[in-house]
Amino acid sequence: MSMTPFFAPESVAVIGASREPEKPGHVIFRNLLENGYEGKVYPVNPAADELFGHKVYDKITDIEGPVDLAVIVVPSGAVLSVLQDCKKKGTKHVIIISGGFKESGNIELEKKLSGFLKKNKIRAIGPNCMGVLNPHSGLDTIFNPIYKSERPGKGAISFITQSGAVGIVILDWMGMKGYNISKFVSYGNAADIDETDLIEYLASDNQTSVICAFLEGVKEGRKFFETCRRLSRKKPVIALKGGTTPAGTVAVSSHTGSLAGSAEIYGAAFRQAGIIQAGDIEEMFDFARTLSTQPVPRGNRVQIITDGGGFGVMAVDWLVKHGLVLAKMQPERIKKLKKAFPPYVVVKNPIDLTGDATAEWYTTALKEAISDPGVDMIMLILLLQLPSLSPKVVELVTETAKNSKKPIIVVSAGGRYTEVLKKALEDSGIPAFSYPEKAARALSKLVEYGRYKKAK
Amino acid sequence: MSMTPFFAPESVAVIGASREPEKPGHVIFRNLLENGYEGKVYPVNPAADELFGHKVYDKITDIEGPVDLAVIVVPSGAVLSVLQDCKKKGTKHVIIISGGFKESGNIELEKKLSGFLKKNKIRAIGPNCMGVLNPHSGLDTIFNPIYKSERPGKGAISFITQSGAVGIVILDWMGMKGYNISKFVSYGNAADIDETDLIEYLASDNQTSVICAFLEGVKEGRKFFETCRRLSRKKPVIALKGGTTPAGTVAVSSHTGSLAGSAEIYGAAFRQAGIIQAGDIEEMFDFARTLSTQPVPRGNRVQIITDGGGFGVMAVDWLVKHGLVLAKMQPERIKKLKKAFPPYVVVKNPIDLTGDATAEWYTTALKEAISDPGVDMIMLILLLQLPSLSPKVVELVTETAKNSKKPIIVVSAGGRYTEVLKKALEDSGIPAFSYPEKAARALSKLVEYGRYKKAK
Repeated sequence: MSMTPFFAPESVAVIGASREPEKPGHVIFRNLLENGYEGKVYPVNPAADELFGHKVYDKITDIEGPVDLAVIVVPSGAVLSVLQDCKKKGTKHVIIISGGFKESGNIELEKKLSGFLKKNKIRAIGPNCMGVLNPHSGLDTIFNPIYKSERPGKGAISFITQSGAVGIVILDWMGMKGYNISKFVSYGNAADIDETDLIEYLASDNQTSVICAFLEGVKEGRKFFETCRRLSRKKPVIALKGGTTPAGTVAVSSHTGSLAGSAEIYGAAFRQAGIIQAGDIEEMFDFARTLSTQPVPRGNRVQIITDGGGFGVMAVDWLVKHGLVLAKMQPERIKKLKKAFPPYVVVKNPIDLTGDATAEWYTTALKEAISDPGVDMIMLILLLQLPSLSPKVVELVTETAKNSKKPIIVVSAGGRYTEVLKKALEDSGIPAFSYPEKAARALSKLVEYGRYKKAK
Repeated sequence: MSMTPFFAPESVAVIGASREPEKPGHVIFRNLLENGYEGKVYPVNPAADELFGHKVYDKITDIEGPVDLAVIVVPSGAVLSVLQDCKKKGTKHVIIISGGFKESGNIELEKKLSGFLKKNKIRAIGPNCMGVLNPHSGLDTIFNPIYKSERPGKGAISFITQSGAVGIVILDWMGMKGYNISKFVSYGNAADIDETDLIEYLASDNQTSVICAFLEGVKEGRKFFETCRRLSRKKPVIALKGGTTPAGTVAVSSHTGSLAGSAEIYGAAFRQAGIIQAGDIEEMFDFARTLSTQPVPRGNRVQIITDGGGFGVMAVDWLVKHGLVLAKMQPERIKKLKKAFPPYVVVKNPIDLTGDATAEWYTTALKEAISDPGVDMIMLILLLQLPSLSPKVVELVTETAKNSKKPIIVVSAGGRYTEVLKKALEDSGIPAFSYPEKAARALSKLVEYGRYKKAK
């Protein structure tokens, strides 16, 4: 059955749409009205007549037109009878936000739910979840107001998570950072649709170029890893595993009731399936930003161009620690660059343009590094605070980078002035990192993924 | 000789104060006028008559009153003759911003400079540096305009760095983050005053509670490490070492006592001297924020209180990975807490208040954890996006934390709404981290420092 109605339905019913502003059912209905969704939205709640000028229906079966997707926000005890109505209505896709199932010890209720869904061929995300955010269609079932948690714009990174809390925190953080998203799914207890189904769908989704997953456990291990092995050559899959130490494993089982497994077992399985493992949340998105915008490099040789010696030194350290090597440019090219700059500019690796660096110097050095056959990747360290460095370096660098088939990433750290310029780089498809260690780690994953793709 | 004139002089001459807005001599003079410094400021430049309404002097000797500190921003070739004038004037403290010495291959000029300073008992910071920022006195010799690089407010963390570029980036970043500072020193080539002198001074500075150092090398190894060993029990010293991988740098010269070496040699020397080593810049300030605000714990048992199960799981993992253990609260206290909350709240470790958590629930749980003898430290995970959690949790938590003699730190991640509330926590002396891994690492350093202090 098509998964499309979960992400781009033409009509949505919010069952449990409430008039109380703090209730999830209220916030979800309002967000569907206000956050850019253009399909039809129907509130359902036997205790209300009107909500934001919309007629409220007693039951989903009272709605005249078809309903592609039902978002269910009623107490757990009422979910099954609501689903009976969905069946009658012919609505085959539901997102069950409601908690109070397996995670609260109500194993029996969750079993009944799974059984009903399977028998009646209703596909469900949830229960105990935040649901879906798809900026491309405007669908937004997150029960948080926008002022409390920001929403990312339209992008190419998809992200799935069991934990709703981890999910909203990440969405909020992505919104602030200016990182964009293709599809977000918080799938909670996975009574029906699980991580494997979602990865399968996202691998075939044209708007998604990288898939990220925060996993506390995996429902069906073999199916999951076989699916990933099949798909990860086509599209990078990045995973962050929660609950990897023995104590963390215990914490997982009391949280979702799923079996967590040791770090070693998961690490080995991830590697075999071609899944890129991230150590923490920031790392996951560092990898995703890089893999979704940069080509796979031919080799592991990096040219550094910097305006700060200290940052150049740190970058060398971190590149070496991550198994990358310093590129050596051709002698005639080095000679040419030396002529182009004052004598105190160091044309080695790093190329240290010094604190006198200008936007034009960066362009000159970048062009040569792009052309040099000894260079596979380029790390530009831009300390934008320096007096001689004009902000137009952003336009010049992005313009020059357009002609490159090599990965180019930027390291740029500082305060608000720097953050604004970094966002401009990021919007032009150049990932910008705060510190050399993070940039080096991201480049090393690009190399790792390139090797995996080529193998076999 | 007192170091005070470097940090809180009553009068400053800027030698090389320029009328051209992009020149460092111009920006420094302007920053001294505009950024809160209340002492006397004299511009010196034979080619100008007036600057921002101030009379410009041809030479420092033309100034009528005393000059505590001279900031020198003239070409390297003119520095020695300017110093002759400082000697005549009786100015015994100078900050030499000018580059063009050892770092550009002018070894001889730097030797002459060192010799002159020593012979004439003039104390100098620099050359080739950014100088000093002391928000407490308003002294600011950073040659960057404020719009390009922000300045942190008055705080208790001091930071010294050889690299000027690393220095301004960090200041800028601290300003944006709302992290405050006691003294900042970029000391460049260290022709006279070096890292050891600065740490010695900062250890006796009442406004400084933690000392951070970014080091590319150490001038006199033995002196440095002996000083740190002597002082680090009194005040935490945190170091980040740049340039640790090149294998060929293993050289310990016993007759000069200078140490330049591999990561292992430095790591061992740091440990012996009680210096806390940071892996990267963020980590350095994570440790500094924690050590400067939190007491040393009695043990390594951590109680987690969370409103997000997934974050609780990650926190457990990271605490265990960093050698900490999960605290076990007394059975009667657990019973009491269970009674205080609805049945779906999990009163274990983590205490999972769930997505229904309120500010009052946090206060209740926090008070019990503070009182429980089985708890040494408390990690509060506050996912502030949740609908039921009012922002007043910030006031309630800081109020409750005031009565605690145990370390309390917060984990809170998200977008702008969350960042605003985190800054409020930070301002009230509770360090706030974005992710559990960083918080766990910081707590582990608190335990490590506590053990070091107790040893011997």
